[in-house]
Amino acid sequence: MLYCDETQLEQTIKDFAQFGQTHKGGISRLSLSDADLAVRGYFCQRCQQLGMTISYDDMGNIYATRAGLSDALPIILGSHLDSVEKGGIYDGTFGVIAALVALETLAAQGIITQHPITIIDYTNEEGARFDPSMMSSGVLAHKFDKQKMLDSTDKSGVRFGDALAASGYLGDISNRITKAAANLELHIEQGPVLESEQKSIGVVEGVVGMVCYQIEITGESDHAGTTPMGMRKDPLFAAAEIITRLRQSLLKLDSALVFTMGRIVAYPNIHTVIPNKVIFTLDARHQDAAVIKQVVETIAALPHDIEGCQLNAQPLWGRDTVEFAPHLIAEVEQSCQKYGYAYRRMYSGAGHDAQFMATIIPTTMIFIPSINGKSHCEEEATSLSDCAQGVNVLIETLLTLDKKLA
Amino acid sequence: MLYCDETQLEQTIKDFAQFGQTHKGGISRLSLSDADLAVRGYFCQRCQQLGMTISYDDMGNIYATRAGLSDALPIILGSHLDSVEKGGIYDGTFGVIAALVALETLAAQGIITQHPITIIDYTNEEGARFDPSMMSSGVLAHKFDKQKMLDSTDKSGVRFGDALAASGYLGDISNRITKAAANLELHIEQGPVLESEQKSIGVVEGVVGMVCYQIEITGESDHAGTTPMGMRKDPLFAAAEIITRLRQSLLKLDSALVFTMGRIVAYPNIHTVIPNKVIFTLDARHQDAAVIKQVVETIAALPHDIEGCQLNAQPLWGRDTVEFAPHLIAEVEQSCQKYGYAYRRMYSGAGHDAQFMATIIPTTMIFIPSINGKSHCEEEATSLSDCAQGVNVLIETLLTLDKKLA
Repeated sequence: MLYCDETQLEQTIKDFAQFGQTHKGGISRLSLSDADLAVRGYFCQRCQQLGMTISYDDMGNIYATRAGLSDALPIILGSHLDSVEKGGIYDGTFGVIAALVALETLAAQGIITQHPITIIDYTNEEGARFDPSMMSSGVLAHKFDKQKMLDSTDKSGVRFGDALAASGYLGDISNRITKAAANLELHIEQGPVLESEQKSIGVVEGVVGMVCYQIEITGESDHAGTTPMGMRKDPLFAAAEIITRLRQSLLKLDSALVFTMGRIVAYPNIHTVIPNKVIFTLDARHQDAAVIKQVVETIAALPHDIEGCQLNAQPLWGRDTVEFAPHLIAEVEQSCQKYGYAYRRMYSGAGHDAQFMATIIPTTMIFIPSINGKSHCEEEATSLSDCAQGVNVLIETLLTLDKKLA
Repeated sequence: MLYCDETQLEQTIKDFAQFGQTHKGGISRLSLSDADLAVRGYFCQRCQQLGMTISYDDMGNIYATRAGLSDALPIILGSHLDSVEKGGIYDGTFGVIAALVALETLAAQGIITQHPITIIDYTNEEGARFDPSMMSSGVLAHKFDKQKMLDSTDKSGVRFGDALAASGYLGDISNRITKAAANLELHIEQGPVLESEQKSIGVVEGVVGMVCYQIEITGESDHAGTTPMGMRKDPLFAAAEIITRLRQSLLKLDSALVFTMGRIVAYPNIHTVIPNKVIFTLDARHQDAAVIKQVVETIAALPHDIEGCQLNAQPLWGRDTVEFAPHLIAEVEQSCQKYGYAYRRMYSGAGHDAQFMATIIPTTMIFIPSINGKSHCEEEATSLSDCAQGVNVLIETLLTLDKKLA
């Protein structure tokens, strides 16, 4: 079993964190921004130092390939280098760093794999500048229409397609990855489970399915001072009641179900006026489609009339659970066992490029812990020891797959 | 007993509704806007046609005075001609119209009162352009600091003081009304009580006291997909619970208590993120200070820790109940009885210039019904019959007081 050099790993994390760094130790590296272009250049440079060849496809995805001994299909590693505004230095980036350090470790040991190894930096995973998130893996997997993606504009009105053309990273469609022997994406957990259970590695079985609803309750605006309580149709009172009722019902379904009312807006939202409308969202996620179905049924069973107000629930979107490749999951698990690392099998509650890639290439993910479960913020962190264990599991899984898939 | 001419009254309502009229039958007549200046000019013209003398004070309040037979203190009528954006044609304006039509009715009958009668148009009652509402009556009653009022700016950065100086309605401080025999303000109810009880007149005993609190619940933001339910500190769940609990407690206090959570804001208010903070307001009004005290105690008894979140309730402002002059209330009531009009005694849940004027001059108000309880909107309306009954009660009360106070 190989071990990466922790000092070198720590330095590499710092190297990548320079690009777009914020005062509080995070990064702002919106897709195709100057900071993103700078880190892309640095990534290519580091790969070229390893003798890897670089190509870009028509979505600006970067492929850095280390040749193998055979002309077998490549094994893919990597994640994304873009971040949200004031994001952390690990989300996405560490998946690319881990892949790079893994190959640097092999190179230092003089190991050449049978399969070519390709590290991908997926363009615009976050969707923080150009909607939607996971844009380019979505195009690779034919989930998103390319033209619509090119026409997506940022807050200043800049088209993604124009930003891509100007970036220097616009390549040919023929460079797209369409087949590979396996795809391994290492990522931070972005949740508190591994840390709370003192595990270092999450062996990821898939990405949970989800539904997102918008629930609108319509009442009647009246003057806060002149309308007796019995003559009101107050949608905020109704919303408070429904939120509590939904919560109680959903908590009974399954302990692994997570659900969130993250957004609530009242109209006209003035303290002296009874609202005429309250809208809130309900995001619910679970790996088991049967549980998600129960969520949908629970929402469908909400009353349409409540306290003189009308309730209307509209699905905004949803996704089915994505199951990762069982033989890859088993290899990751066995790698953890070889090293004696504390691990657990789990589903990802967050979306990742891997969920789209899984539909065209055998895929799995490796999670490492997030301190306090934080991500998408400057406080986002993972201990160096956990980072190193993640890289080691990645190396071992890669080498085992290289042999078994040959 | 005198009766106003309903045809003339209807025409006068239309005449005043021309200024700042909206497509849907309302008016937008923000204080000191072109539309407001135009209606002021028209009001002065109509008063001058009655032989009244016009003056303005240092807040731009207009005083139109019809001389009496004696040099007694004047009896004051009137209300305000400004409106909110897309407001109705009755709120405030009808108090001025009623006073004008009352005097036109006296003139037509050749009646000259002992007391001078002054109609006031109070500047910027709504506070819709320049904060706060009831600005100029507040200055007259020494509740507001004049300099601060002059420095109040609208959305475009225009100072109230500059708009006033440019308006042509800036007069001398010596013109302020400081003493009067009585003050009668007729106004629409802005609530549904009179209509629902089929009364034409509200005999107003005062303006209810109120408290307004901001309740802030602080939790912790985490990813909606990756954070197990048991590890969340979700302030929206806590807020829903507290809103329902507060509602249940406050409903038990007194059936005349009204309370409203009109404003709610969640942070960061993104559907995929558990909020870290939810803020909502609680506005509660009742004529009895003891009931308001119970509201304050109920808020003070809220838990500071709820479901892992911290709750903090801060008073934003409040006002004590304003009691109107009992001898004036009795006169209004007797006027209703003389005409045989359906009336009820009631408190105003909304604020009015009269509440400030009441602190320097014996004051009461006369309410007429609001159809569907609506106000501050283009649908705001009152039947012509109710309008006429209001004017008649105003005339009768005025004439009785003129005799009794002589």
